Amino acid sequence: MLFITFEGPEGSGKTSVLAKLKEKFASEGIEITTTREPGGSVISEEIRKIILNKENTLMDPWTEVLLYIAARRQHLVEKVFPEVSSKKIIICDRFSDSTLAYQGYGRKLDINKINAIQDMAFDNFKPNLTILFNVSPEVGLQRIESRNQNENDRLDKETLEFHNLVYQGYQEIVKDNPERIKVVDASKKFDEVLNEVYQIIKQFISTSS
Amino acid sequence: MLFITFEGPEGSGKTSVLAKLKEKFASEGIEITTTREPGGSVISEEIRKIILNKENTLMDPWTEVLLYIAARRQHLVEKVFPEVSSKKIIICDRFSDSTLAYQGYGRKLDINKINAIQDMAFDNFKPNLTILFNVSPEVGLQRIESRNQNENDRLDKETLEFHNLVYQGYQEIVKDNPERIKVVDASKKFDEVLNEVYQIIKQFISTSS
Repeated sequence: MLFITFEGPEGSGKTSVLAKLKEKFASEGIEITTTREPGGSVISEEIRKIILNKENTLMDPWTEVLLYIAARRQHLVEKVFPEVSSKKIIICDRFSDSTLAYQGYGRKLDINKINAIQDMAFDNFKPNLTILFNVSPEVGLQRIESRNQNENDRLDKETLEFHNLVYQGYQEIVKDNPERIKVVDASKKFDEVLNEVYQIIKQFISTSS
Repeated sequence: MLFITFEGPEGSGKTSVLAKLKEKFASEGIEITTTREPGGSVISEEIRKIILNKENTLMDPWTEVLLYIAARRQHLVEKVFPEVSSKKIIICDRFSDSTLAYQGYGRKLDINKINAIQDMAFDNFKPNLTILFNVSPEVGLQRIESRNQNENDRLDKETLEFHNLVYQGYQEIVKDNPERIKVVDASKKFDEVLNEVYQIIKQFISTSS
C-alpha cells in the first residue's frame, strides 16, 4: 500500500483535483482508491456529527482534537490498516496534518501534545507522501463563498484570523516534514494544479514500486 | 476544591454509597457536590451514546479510549475546572482509573500510552483522593444480574474473563498509586462500606483544610 494524503485550506481545490486525478490514472490503467474521514465508517460518521454540530458551542478545543483523533483512528482501523500489505494506492482527503493545522495552529494548542497523541493513537502510522494544496486564506475563502451558505458548518464559520493561523500552520508543518510533504501552488488554474499533482504522484509511484 | 473519585467494578455499590454519603454529610452541614460523566454536559452525553451504542460492534478499543477521554475532558472543562479555586468538595463517580482498568487492563492495551494521553488531555489534573470499592467480579456481577437486563449496555455484556482483567487491573492501579487510592472492601454489608468510606473522607477533609 502507498498511503498519500491531500492537505490544504478551505477552497484549495484538493477535493476536485482528487476526483479528476482518479479518472486520469484510471484511463492509464492505474487504480487509485480515494477515501476521506469518515469514509463509510458509521462510528466515525457519528463522531463527526458531534464535532460539526453548530449547537455544540461549548466544545472545548482539546475535546475537538480528541474527537478528530478518535474518528481518524476508527477510519484507519476499518478502511486503511486492512490494506497495509496490499498493492493499493490510497489517497486520503485530509489526515493528521489537518488536525495539527486547524486545531493545533488555528486554536493555538500545544503542537507537541497533538503530535504525541496522534502518534500513539495511530501506532505511529504516517503517510508515505503528502501534497499540500497551498493557497492564501483570501483566495481560498473567496472560492468557498460561492458555495451555498447553508451548507457551511461550524468550522467554516471561523474568522479570517483563524484561517490565517491555519495557513501559517501548514507552512510550519512543511518545514518540519520536508521529505514527506510536497507543496503545490493551488492558487493557479485548476488544470495546472491537476497536472502538477499528477506529475508528483506519477513519479512517486514509479520510484516506490 | 477537593476532587475525590470513586472507582470499582460493576456491582461494587459505589453509586448507592455516594448518594447516602451526600445525605450523611449534608446532615452535618457539609455540602458534597456529586458528579459523574457526562454529568449534564450535552457534548459528553453525545459522545457516551456512541460508546454505549450496542450496534457499534466495529468499535476499535483505541477509538473507545479516545472517546472516553474526550467525554471526560469536556466534563472537566464544563463542570470541574471552573470550581478549582472554590472550597467545594466534589466527588466524581468514575474517572481516569476506570479507563485504565476497563480499556487498559480489560482490553489489554498499552497502559503507559493511556496514562500519557490522559495526562496530556487533562493538563495533568489528578484526583486528590480516590476510593476503590473493591469487590470480586463474581460478587459484583451477581449483584448486577438482578438489574433489568434491558438496561444493560455494550460494556455490561462483556465476558467474565474481561471483568477478571478489570479487577486485576484495579489492583495494579492501587500498587502504582498507593498515596492517592484508598481501598475499601465492598463485599461487606452496605452500612459497613458506607461507614468506612465516610470515615476516610471525613479524615481526608479535616487534614486537607
